Parts: sequence; C-alpha cells; structure tokens
Amino acid sequence: MDPHVLVVADVSCSPENAVEFGQVLHEFAAACRAEPGCLSYEVFRSEEAPERYVSIERYADPAAFAAHRDSEHFRAIGLARLMPLTTSRDVRLYDAPREVPPAAP
Amino acid sequence: MDPHVLVVADVSCSPENAVEFGQVLHEFAAACRAEPGCLSYEVFRSEEAPERYVSIERYADPAAFAAHRDSEHFRAIGLARLMPLTTSRDVRLYDAPREVPPAAP
Repeated sequence: MDPHVLVVADVSCSPENAVEFGQVLHEFAAACRAEPGCLSYEVFRSEEAPERYVSIERYADPAAFAAHRDSEHFRAIGLARLMPLTTSRDVRLYDAPREVPPAAP
Repeated sequence: MDPHVLVVADVSCSPENAVEFGQVLHEFAAACRAEPGCLSYEVFRSEEAPERYVSIERYADPAAFAAHRDSEHFRAIGLARLMPLTTSRDVRLYDAPREVPPAAP
C-alpha cells in the first residue's frame, strides 16, 4: 500500500451556514487536490447532523502536508473564509496505514 | 490525546441500493457503538456520489478492533447484509494519531 499521511478533519458550522460552508469547503477541496503532494482530498457530510462535514485528506508525506498548510488557498479559503464559519474543529493526523482485508463470511 | 486505532472504511454500493445500504449501515453503526472497545463509529456520505459512504471508526486498541470483527453483529449485519450490497470497499487502519493545531490566521 502506498505510504501516506492521512488527515481527518471533522468540522462543523452553524446550521444556517451549512449550505454556504459546504460550497466553500468543496471549493477548497478542489484547490487542495491540485497540490503536487496531495494524493486525495474528499469531503463527506453527516446524515444525522448536516452542518457537520468530514474531510479525508491524504498527502504523500509530512512535507506535502506542510506545503498544504503554507499554500495560498489554505490562507485565502481555509483561514479567511472557512474558519470564520467554523463552530467546532477536530483535525487529526495519522500515518503508517495498514490495509484491512475483508473478513471471511 | 487518547491513543486509539482509527479505521476508515470507504464503501460503495450500486446507486439503486443507496438508501437501503445507508439504513443498514446506520443500524450496523449503532450496534458497533455498543461494543465496549468502540470509542466512536460515525457514518458520512459523499455529496458527489451519494452511493458512497465513509465510516470513521475509533477503537481503544487493536484487540478492541479484533473483538469488533468477531462480534455477532459484524457477522449478521456487516457480512450477511452489507457485504452483498457492497460494490467497492477500501478499509484502512491507522494508529498513533497526532492532533493538528489550528494554523495562525
């Protein structure tokens, strides 16, 4: 399996901002996917709490994640437009993934 | 930060089964949350591909994850009801999380 750094960003906004927040988050995700070291950046939404989004982000290595945080779009979209709408934020970084084979039925 | 094992289960079904699949997945998630070693089990849905779900699961340690895979509901719901509807599956296990502090604006 390709070594990578996983970032799980669990973020919420106020319910009335959920649609706008989602649109800006998808705009941000598209900009991140264009980063050289970003392997994937995908946005998912909670069905129980529609104002809650989880981004599952994969970077080639820690340096690629650092470059992500230094990028212009991190500043112009992530910090300047998403953060002000964010009511809660839990971002965790994991590395050394191991694939889990399907269990025998 | 509490040490834990993270499992990211990225699963898809055929579009026509998406609603049923989601219902069974939420039923499975509720059963998993009742496991002693399960810290959290949350289901999110892709907005671009509504037949795609991601479960973000946290277990106290590898033994708790093994107990999850040996559980009755893993067999009766996971294997017997979800797997037959599953068209693609990518399940990865991560450990040693590090919290990512907010970047300075």
